[in-house]
Amino acid sequence: MRTFFDARQHDHAPAMELHNGAYVPYAEHRGRMENVLEALSYVEAPRDYGMEPIRRVHRDNYLEFLQSAHPRWVEAGRNGDAHGYAWPVVGRRPLKLNRIDADLGQFSFDASSPIAAGTWTSAYWAAQSALAATEAVLAGERAAFALCRPPGHHCGADYLGGYCFINNIAVAAEAAIAAGKKRVAILDIDYHHGNGTQDIFYDRGDVLFVSVHADPATDYPFFWGHADEHGEGEGEGATLNLPLPRGTDLAAYTAALDTGLAAIRDFGADMLCVSFGADTFAGDPISQFALQTADYTPIARSIAALDLPTVIVMEGGYAVDALGANVAAFLAGFG
Amino acid sequence: MRTFFDARQHDHAPAMELHNGAYVPYAEHRGRMENVLEALSYVEAPRDYGMEPIRRVHRDNYLEFLQSAHPRWVEAGRNGDAHGYAWPVVGRRPLKLNRIDADLGQFSFDASSPIAAGTWTSAYWAAQSALAATEAVLAGERAAFALCRPPGHHCGADYLGGYCFINNIAVAAEAAIAAGKKRVAILDIDYHHGNGTQDIFYDRGDVLFVSVHADPATDYPFFWGHADEHGEGEGEGATLNLPLPRGTDLAAYTAALDTGLAAIRDFGADMLCVSFGADTFAGDPISQFALQTADYTPIARSIAALDLPTVIVMEGGYAVDALGANVAAFLAGFG
Ligand SMILES: [Zn+2]
Ligand SMILES: [Zn+2]
Repeated sequence: MRTFFDARQHDHAPAMELHNGAYVPYAEHRGRMENVLEALSYVEAPRDYGMEPIRRVHRDNYLEFLQSAHPRWVEAGRNGDAHGYAWPVVGRRPLKLNRIDADLGQFSFDASSPIAAGTWTSAYWAAQSALAATEAVLAGERAAFALCRPPGHHCGADYLGGYCFINNIAVAAEAAIAAGKKRVAILDIDYHHGNGTQDIFYDRGDVLFVSVHADPATDYPFFWGHADEHGEGEGEGATLNLPLPRGTDLAAYTAALDTGLAAIRDFGADMLCVSFGADTFAGDPISQFALQTADYTPIARSIAALDLPTVIVMEGGYAVDALGANVAAFLAGFG
Repeated sequence: MRTFFDARQHDHAPAMELHNGAYVPYAEHRGRMENVLEALSYVEAPRDYGMEPIRRVHRDNYLEFLQSAHPRWVEAGRNGDAHGYAWPVVGRRPLKLNRIDADLGQFSFDASSPIAAGTWTSAYWAAQSALAATEAVLAGERAAFALCRPPGHHCGADYLGGYCFINNIAVAAEAAIAAGKKRVAILDIDYHHGNGTQDIFYDRGDVLFVSVHADPATDYPFFWGHADEHGEGEGEGATLNLPLPRGTDLAAYTAALDTGLAAIRDFGADMLCVSFGADTFAGDPISQFALQTADYTPIARSIAALDLPTVIVMEGGYAVDALGANVAAFLAGFG
């Protein structure tokens, strides 16, 4: 399968994150990609599609913030990575604020996603990789894979979080629509709910968002991904959340996935975008499902059976030593 | 002036906080109170007024969370203090969540206010000190002082933050109303906006909230305290925010304060509750106003000139070595 990756996606290298109440080394590190690159035979660098496809998804003020955040941090005399510490949880509204700490809070929802010197560059090129995979599929490939890092599904139109800065799958879906696709289905099979993707398309009737993920009552991102979230306005019914308990194995996972695939068939999609995270793997250090490496092939086969042009975008997966094997097993199912 | 303090207010002792992107020692420590206690001649322990006056301000689910958070943290196998790391910034709604990290996010708005083993005990007794000062004033004292720690003005009906867990000034105001006062004015003269107090009374016509504070465009809590926030519903017009720039000295401060005092006169208050923070002091390490120790006496005198029964509650102040002198200078203005 044609696979896209740009070496500048390695530039993003935050040092520490706040996780489960401790200040710990950043889990979403470049070693993840190195393991996948070893497992794949060949990757292509994307061409540069520019800012326009990113602007279809993210608000201008957010993109300005994202590009300027680390320089402003340094200008404010701070060391290390730009970190928020306060958030407008109650009564968020547009405000013109004049301090980097305030903007970090205004444009994020967690303390786990610091902005380092190379963050913008890596996020930009991850989005370009998603666009290159989309272009390949629009040009006739059955499926293509964007090895995105940083991942994207937790960030919304104007907020970052969950290691995500630009929503790569949303950029891909919007590019497909701009190229003439009428009904795009996004299937998110990362362990965690893709709250950013859901928010971006929540009121859209032309994009179906289906997510199979760990129950947010026990797992990040906690505040989104509950079964009673269905979309709103023209998007009513075009969001489908299928939360599953910790410990879920292939049998239970497949049952939920089949429900999601049926919804995609009913929707009449003419394009499929898959947010693939390998943190559903039994050995993942921050997740609690029980999938094995070999399970990813039949999962991918049942998705391939939708028989839709398919862009696959990398999301999470933190069992670094097994990541390449898990990705390869998944891609093999389209083979 | 009669002053209330309970030794159990020392129990609250978090180790670290996330501030300006660094994990640093907790600024709101017991040394603050020790410095004030040395400067005051005599303090009284409050009696125990129980939970009812606290329940008038805070929601039951929040109070249950607050009491159980640290034991749940330990039960989850965690070390140190209970810290949130993700917040429901977009679309906060009531959710039944089953993980301490989720509840920490649901019931807070920053990463600077960890819950330690002694937090509940100290917050409870700080509120009792506020109630004892209120009782003294209702019984005929001209003014009384509650040396509250932890402070209270940043926490709302169902959220903590800004080193605050129980909103002591709101507990005092509600106790005064329960005892028969009809129109209570709250004057907040901490360096930081009292967002929790504002939220608690935002739709109330019987409680006026007036705050003189650093412009939230540059200073914590960033997302509240802007001049266009006036209250809503029956509380429309009963919130008055007077933000001031960094570097404000006594002359500029007094001009804003006079505007606030005029609003309190116009409101026809029969009771005054003052949130006093000494972080307006020029030497405060996390704040940027230019008040001197001697300035606190004329400030207090102009407040005393309202000639209202007055409960004073301690909020912030982080220039620890000067804190006792600043508090004593303020209380002298009522003498
Ligand atoms: Zn994930
Ligand atoms: Zn303060």
